[in-house]
Amino acid sequence: MLWTKTFIPTLKETPQEAESVSHQLMLRAGLIRMLVSGVYSYLPLGLRVLNNICRVVRREMESAGAAELLLPALQPIDLWTKSGREKDIAEIMIRFTDRRGRHICLGPTHEEVITDLVKANVNSYRQLPVVLYQIQTKYRDEIRPRFGVVRACEFIMKDAYSFDRDEDGLEKNYRNMYGAYLRIFSSCGLQVMAVEADSGVMGGKVSHEFMVAAASGEDSVFCCPACAKAYPAAQQEGCASCGGQTEKRNTLEIGHIFKLGTKYSAALGANFTDEEGKQRPIIMGCYGIGVSRLMAAVIEQNHDQSGIIWPKGISPYKVVISALDMTNPVITAKAYEVYNELSAKGVDVILDDRDERAGIKFNDAELLGFPLQIIIGKEAANSGKLELKTRGSREKQLGTKEEIYKRVLDS
Amino acid sequence: MLWTKTFIPTLKETPQEAESVSHQLMLRAGLIRMLVSGVYSYLPLGLRVLNNICRVVRREMESAGAAELLLPALQPIDLWTKSGREKDIAEIMIRFTDRRGRHICLGPTHEEVITDLVKANVNSYRQLPVVLYQIQTKYRDEIRPRFGVVRACEFIMKDAYSFDRDEDGLEKNYRNMYGAYLRIFSSCGLQVMAVEADSGVMGGKVSHEFMVAAASGEDSVFCCPACAKAYPAAQQEGCASCGGQTEKRNTLEIGHIFKLGTKYSAALGANFTDEEGKQRPIIMGCYGIGVSRLMAAVIEQNHDQSGIIWPKGISPYKVVISALDMTNPVITAKAYEVYNELSAKGVDVILDDRDERAGIKFNDAELLGFPLQIIIGKEAANSGKLELKTRGSREKQLGTKEEIYKRVLDS
Repeated sequence: MLWTKTFIPTLKETPQEAESVSHQLMLRAGLIRMLVSGVYSYLPLGLRVLNNICRVVRREMESAGAAELLLPALQPIDLWTKSGREKDIAEIMIRFTDRRGRHICLGPTHEEVITDLVKANVNSYRQLPVVLYQIQTKYRDEIRPRFGVVRACEFIMKDAYSFDRDEDGLEKNYRNMYGAYLRIFSSCGLQVMAVEADSGVMGGKVSHEFMVAAASGEDSVFCCPACAKAYPAAQQEGCASCGGQTEKRNTLEIGHIFKLGTKYSAALGANFTDEEGKQRPIIMGCYGIGVSRLMAAVIEQNHDQSGIIWPKGISPYKVVISALDMTNPVITAKAYEVYNELSAKGVDVILDDRDERAGIKFNDAELLGFPLQIIIGKEAANSGKLELKTRGSREKQLGTKEEIYKRVLDS
Repeated sequence: MLWTKTFIPTLKETPQEAESVSHQLMLRAGLIRMLVSGVYSYLPLGLRVLNNICRVVRREMESAGAAELLLPALQPIDLWTKSGREKDIAEIMIRFTDRRGRHICLGPTHEEVITDLVKANVNSYRQLPVVLYQIQTKYRDEIRPRFGVVRACEFIMKDAYSFDRDEDGLEKNYRNMYGAYLRIFSSCGLQVMAVEADSGVMGGKVSHEFMVAAASGEDSVFCCPACAKAYPAAQQEGCASCGGQTEKRNTLEIGHIFKLGTKYSAALGANFTDEEGKQRPIIMGCYGIGVSRLMAAVIEQNHDQSGIIWPKGISPYKVVISALDMTNPVITAKAYEVYNELSAKGVDVILDDRDERAGIKFNDAELLGFPLQIIIGKEAANSGKLELKTRGSREKQLGTKEEIYKRVLDS
């Protein structure tokens, strides 16, 4: 991609309305823009990050045996009346009456809709288990939106649902998902803590939250520096595992998995016929990840004073080529040559072809946080050597084109 | 993919509520399910088709120089008041007041939002042109939803917007998009007619609609069988191009492109500084494709009495392997062998591993419309030969495994 052909409105100043580091950097790097409080547009580079996160999520969901579908945002209120959650969730639910007089809400979550779908299409133990997931936009009437995409009115979730004939099946799916979650967060460059949690309005008995340490986090956990275990509340005797002293850390919740049991299937009548011909409610689990929030969490954990430091695989581009003077035809020719050759090798590369000063290009490259930067100035253009800079370590390296390409492909 | 690991609830009976062929087949083939009238869930195979269409759309948008972003569905009403469209579009607009007292709507389209975004981030002729697009969910308070996803309350659109400094730039982008649209529809296996159209509530002077002939279509065009030109209304003298007699055809609109000019930029103050330092409104174009509707259009044009006939590249899977008796270990072993080998070659393949009768597997394969079917029954398992059936031509072919694989890879 050429920088001038996409849309990257970076900001020099830190926007005053942004309280958290991730919110500040997402605005400054031109990843998002606010439409109204709690409602954001994802600009091209922000969307590329989202898509990279979604790719990781999909890979692990498929390997956990889940099939992707897409449920609607519009939902009939009567499903919520049937499940008994209409009142529990009333405050944050956006609802309206349409021209035909139907009472509709914008789904803050999809347990009711998917249970209704499975009820209509599954009736025998022979069709179970079924594991389905979607990546979809959710809505909450948030009274105090904060921290950019972290607490927003419109946000993107991955929500998965398992349907089993018995507790053993649920246990297996729950463990599968637990493992998939750890792999997803690790692939996104996140260090997470899994803690047993209260199931709250979702119901069910067992649930685990996945937490990321973040200065601006509104949740908290007590974690043990000695053995890395984390707890939802301070333990009287210290760490239950090793006895060490636990410390309170601010955290951001990025995932939550629940053993729902039969709460929704019983309420909505999602039954199956078992091997003995008896009708029984399907045993359910649900598994959520805040996809747009995860992007903020990655930045909270991967940045320095100059900007974002994207983990490999999540970055909008792997390499930025900074052509330091686009009025110099030798530099320009070399920059396009490297750009074309790396693109032909399948490398995700962006060429900073703006007619801007070198200082601006360096600052934007650091702010945007691409893992690798190839710098093409006068020396490179004349000497035949290229300079490669690694964003994380700030290490610089001079080499022939072939040496630098090899580095890029290997890293 | 294994059939039993995904979710394909096919129906033997034609649902009574479905009036059009595409709606009937999408329900019967388990591509979609209705939640409430005008609101649909996309089941795994329907979502795969949608994603294939989106892949074609993205490829052509990128090659037309458009960068992808993602705008929110929630929009402040005041932008619509400023553009002057609040009343024009009031009937179909879903709106509500949130807990903070803000007047919000669910975007039926995004001219206002994107103009506001570009206004805030573009100010010089040096930053133009900008061409942006998104694939996103839109909402309409449809009084009479019909034909499944064709006239729905929640649907998926590709909407692109061009921003230029002058009419020449707009003309160039408009032609680019026109060409991209023809390539998109052709890649999706559609025969389209482009007709000059009324710009309606969108404003601007010039617009073209892209129409697909469909028995259930609610629009119509007059087309000339002799030279294939199409007109929005009957011409007094017959075809304006060759003089032939035009015929009225029912059609479905799947795309619409508009030269908007300065309607939105002037109303919302999206100006740029030109080379002489003068402030001028940006010249805009907008370009829509009904992505979910396009899926229905493809089925309207590609089906027979037995079901869908997916064009190559759009089908949820390229090949279905029908293992005719899963209780026979020789058949089962051969089916998995072919499945694993084709998967390893990168072929998009689904193995019908259900414990069902051969008749059901044949019927579902035809209903679902995969371009190719490999049939593994007793003969195949014992003889070492495979049977390949082409969905469109119904041609059957017996061959060694290597011969059949070559056919699959070549087609």
